[in-house]
Amino acid sequence: MKSDIKQECISGNYKFIPGKIYRMPTHFGPTTGPRQGPDGKNFAKENKEWPKQTDWIVNFLSNEDQLAALCPEGFSPVGEPVVTVGLTDMKGIPWLAGRGYKMLGVSFNVLFEGKEDRAMGPFLTVLWENMADPILSGREEIGFSKIYCELPDPIEFNDTTRLEASWQGYKFFNMELTDMKPVSLDEIPVPPAVDPDVQLGMLHYKYMPRTGEWGKADVSYPVLTPADNPNVKVSEVFQGKGTISFKKARWEDMPTQYMIVNTLAELEIKEFRGALIRHYRGSKDLSDQRILQ
Amino acid sequence: MKSDIKQECISGNYKFIPGKIYRMPTHFGPTTGPRQGPDGKNFAKENKEWPKQTDWIVNFLSNEDQLAALCPEGFSPVGEPVVTVGLTDMKGIPWLAGRGYKMLGVSFNVLFEGKEDRAMGPFLTVLWENMADPILSGREEIGFSKIYCELPDPIEFNDTTRLEASWQGYKFFNMELTDMKPVSLDEIPVPPAVDPDVQLGMLHYKYMPRTGEWGKADVSYPVLTPADNPNVKVSEVFQGKGTISFKKARWEDMPTQYMIVNTLAELEIKEFRGALIRHYRGSKDLSDQRILQ
Amino acid sequence: MKSDIKQECISGNYKFIPGKIYRMPTHFGPTTGPRQGPDGKNFAKENKEWPKQTDWIVNFLSNEDQLAALCPEGFSPVGEPVVTVGLTDMKGIPWLAGRGYKMLGVSFNVLFEGKEDRAMGPFLTVLWENMADPILSGREEIGFSKIYCELPDPIEFNDTTRLEASWQGYKFFNMELTDMKPVSLDEIPVPPAVDPDVQLGMLHYKYMPRTGEWGKADVSYPVLTPADNPNVKVSEVFQGKGTISFKKARWEDMPTQYMIVNTLAELEIKEFRGALIRHYRGSKDLSDQRILQ
Amino acid sequence: MKSDIKQECISGNYKFIPGKIYRMPTHFGPTTGPRQGPDGKNFAKENKEWPKQTDWIVNFLSNEDQLAALCPEGFSPVGEPVVTVGLTDMKGIPWLAGRGYKMLGVSFNVLFEGKEDRAMGPFLTVLWENMADPILSGREEIGFSKIYCELPDPIEFNDTTRLEASWQGYKFFNMELTDMKPVSLDEIPVPPAVDPDVQLGMLHYKYMPRTGEWGKADVSYPVLTPADNPNVKVSEVFQGKGTISFKKARWEDMPTQYMIVNTLAELEIKEFRGALIRHYRGSKDLSDQRILQ
Repeated sequence: MKSDIKQECISGNYKFIPGKIYRMPTHFGPTTGPRQGPDGKNFAKENKEWPKQTDWIVNFLSNEDQLAALCPEGFSPVGEPVVTVGLTDMKGIPWLAGRGYKMLGVSFNVLFEGKEDRAMGPFLTVLWENMADPILSGREEIGFSKIYCELPDPIEFNDTTRLEASWQGYKFFNMELTDMKPVSLDEIPVPPAVDPDVQLGMLHYKYMPRTGEWGKADVSYPVLTPADNPNVKVSEVFQGKGTISFKKARWEDMPTQYMIVNTLAELEIKEFRGALIRHYRGSKDLSDQRILQ
Repeated sequence: MKSDIKQECISGNYKFIPGKIYRMPTHFGPTTGPRQGPDGKNFAKENKEWPKQTDWIVNFLSNEDQLAALCPEGFSPVGEPVVTVGLTDMKGIPWLAGRGYKMLGVSFNVLFEGKEDRAMGPFLTVLWENMADPILSGREEIGFSKIYCELPDPIEFNDTTRLEASWQGYKFFNMELTDMKPVSLDEIPVPPAVDPDVQLGMLHYKYMPRTGEWGKADVSYPVLTPADNPNVKVSEVFQGKGTISFKKARWEDMPTQYMIVNTLAELEIKEFRGALIRHYRGSKDLSDQRILQ
Repeated sequence: MKSDIKQECISGNYKFIPGKIYRMPTHFGPTTGPRQGPDGKNFAKENKEWPKQTDWIVNFLSNEDQLAALCPEGFSPVGEPVVTVGLTDMKGIPWLAGRGYKMLGVSFNVLFEGKEDRAMGPFLTVLWENMADPILSGREEIGFSKIYCELPDPIEFNDTTRLEASWQGYKFFNMELTDMKPVSLDEIPVPPAVDPDVQLGMLHYKYMPRTGEWGKADVSYPVLTPADNPNVKVSEVFQGKGTISFKKARWEDMPTQYMIVNTLAELEIKEFRGALIRHYRGSKDLSDQRILQ
Repeated sequence: MKSDIKQECISGNYKFIPGKIYRMPTHFGPTTGPRQGPDGKNFAKENKEWPKQTDWIVNFLSNEDQLAALCPEGFSPVGEPVVTVGLTDMKGIPWLAGRGYKMLGVSFNVLFEGKEDRAMGPFLTVLWENMADPILSGREEIGFSKIYCELPDPIEFNDTTRLEASWQGYKFFNMELTDMKPVSLDEIPVPPAVDPDVQLGMLHYKYMPRTGEWGKADVSYPVLTPADNPNVKVSEVFQGKGTISFKKARWEDMPTQYMIVNTLAELEIKEFRGALIRHYRGSKDLSDQRILQ
């Protein structure tokens, strides 16, 4: 009976075009995104001035052991155990044809030592975004640990800026910045020089589970976002005081993210280390993202 | 100078727990989802009655060559080239602790012939969902081609049910069902028997791009959702007339999905083949999802 | 110079059409709404079967003095001081061309005694709705104390139904229903007969402030929704246990509604008096709403 | 039997506090809003710097007869029949404790001549806002013709700014601004002097229907927002080209607003008269709003 079915079939399958980026569904041709526009175009020109971005950042001194426990194989906390919690608003994103979105990330400095590569910089443990499309391209193409949450606009009253994050209405994060004073752009400290064979940038761990063989991985490797980002032009910086808090959640409150939020809520806060608001423009497409060996 | 940095580092990295499902971020322990609840629990018991689901389905006769062009290597359209466009509302989903979401899928029947496996059933070319969390677990764990859109509640007026889909406010899909009459559950036709060495189920193609080596894949294989779903209990079925339409989009309108919507908008509609509304309960966790060879 | 301006003016002002309902803006002709469709049509026919509605109701015994303090001139609590908190989902609303919305109301039984009228029934102290348009027509045409909040879909898990309400992300209300068992429609008690000169229905107090003369009113009178609603056809009723809670808010949390939420949060809950889920269809357009003297 | 019911009643009704602003529900005490904060506080101090506002404005030359037909009794178009369509984003609104919202208004210059008052300025025919609370206080306290719609953030790409408005997903308005160049603040023209007995400001018509007596009004009078607004500090202005369009709607598409959108879509556009983007801070509480005689 095999042949009967076969006779009803026709050929005509599509082929993957070499050198083109695809994401599921692959059946409709190469997938546009941050690193691949329509007709093979990239966004190098547009990224010189866009998006328009604002960061709200709070740092706190935490516990080195707790941070070490968040590090995958080959990663280690480095320097003071300072955690950076940053919320960013992006407007006029070229690859989204001018739309914007927000993100909330938690990072601390690590050193990665692999078989071939040594790299140092902030380790982005989790990055919440309030739009699904950049989450998909970010996870799958460049290995950012992006997940979804709601990120409403900042609330500004009485010299205080408040920012929140929630998941399906469960408010799991608060940030509060006060006494923010403008800072001369010259005052911003230059990062210290490091060993030239250590690559600088943001570190991530890309992982994709294998279908059907539960507990195994299809993909599991560290990745690096090289630090260099020449388009960024900072226009204004404010410094002041800030606090953050994560609110513990039950499985019922955040069934896909409670373990993340609870671990962050349990991080020791020895002291807050100040807050920053930064307005800037310009970006890169992160096509220099690379696997670390 | 290497040693200097090294001295500042401490050990304590986490290890992946064997047999546990992880999704990014992996740093906070195994990730809960449809196939893995808290404390290793699964949802077999809850799935017997939940979620409460409603399908709105429209079929149309299309063009075999156009469908073949959507098939990856090893897939071929089979039988009449009928495209099924189905919108589903799910309420009380156990793995989401009782929350719900909606989805919109486009499929047609195919035969897959691999080196080892032969399989037949609907090929799910794309599945839009209005919630990010199931999109991530669906893409990464079970290879469903899930992407995001807004799916508002149905509009019911004058014996017509209208359903829409939009992306960031761009309305790219309309479905309209009229003259829906209740059907006795006995009247629902049994699918024809097929060759026993052909596995029945829904077909997908899982693909993940490789970081940094643009145009290469980390993951690229066909997957099967076996047809068997014993928990499903249909309570009511209505049949009638229905139409659907996809609205063409410019890159500017839907910069990450225009190629998908435009291909679907160009599918020939030779004739509509009726509409269906179906109310039912019960599900499975799709842990029987498997890679086809 | 007066005349110069005058010369530049032309006539052509619109006139209000007698007998037609207007809401601001009045400049575009009579305003459609629940009681006035396009071309003067009403929705009497459609309201026989629509909308499709579900109520989730929790009752509790409270403190008579607290309820009395919520009563305007002429109103008094009557009978046991039981407060009814009801959340309703409406789908397929005819005057909204088949769209739906949800509402959350708080009421208790009162007697109204005016110069001419005596009326008895639930006094609707506040009604939150998650859609602006019915709030406007409801406040202005029929004097319902409607205000806005977010009302997400119910969460159903482990035989518990949870409902929430929030304002701009501040979750101020929770309802939880458990052990809900089907009730025969025959078991539903008939309300006791009352004095025939007492009108039965739902009571409200309509009020509109006067512009510029702050603290004065343009409108200030009691209104009645007569109880009669012949289209309502209940299909299923479930009874069980239920609880509600209002969460106190600071002005900063709910700057337009904190005084409402806090008063409700302070209402004594002597005991919960059971929960109800009710599925039904049919409505009336409330054009029988009338001012009480 | 009257007495029986009476005996069950207790007294304790609330009284309206003289001089306080109330909106429905009145049962929970005076209602906070733009002109009345908690504990009788006003927002004079905060309004000196807040909110932070951006206007996007397009003007077009239209047809005087069409504008005259939108004028209530006593109002007449004055000067060139230029229609101004302005979208405004407000952030950090004091009376909302630092939250923000957006609005979209349509106005043209009119002269009002009443029995006692003569006034001139933009007549605000309709003002859409994307938040319910300011719609209620704006309609009821100060007679603005506010209604609800969705107003997403602007889309900025390729030197073009696009703004949209939709109602429940129906996109009824587009604005597009291009070639926007910075303008020296000195270049902004001073409005011409007018007859000193003509009051300058924005004009509105407040109207509230009467309950039960359908077609009659509880409130029907013209109101004026005096032009003076000393807190406004403009920081940047850009001028360039712009277009707008309203998209016709069926009753089914916008059952409460189609008549408004269709009238605006039918307004003749003889020529566009340029576009403006304006960044500024500061506001007033509009407590100087007053009824015109």
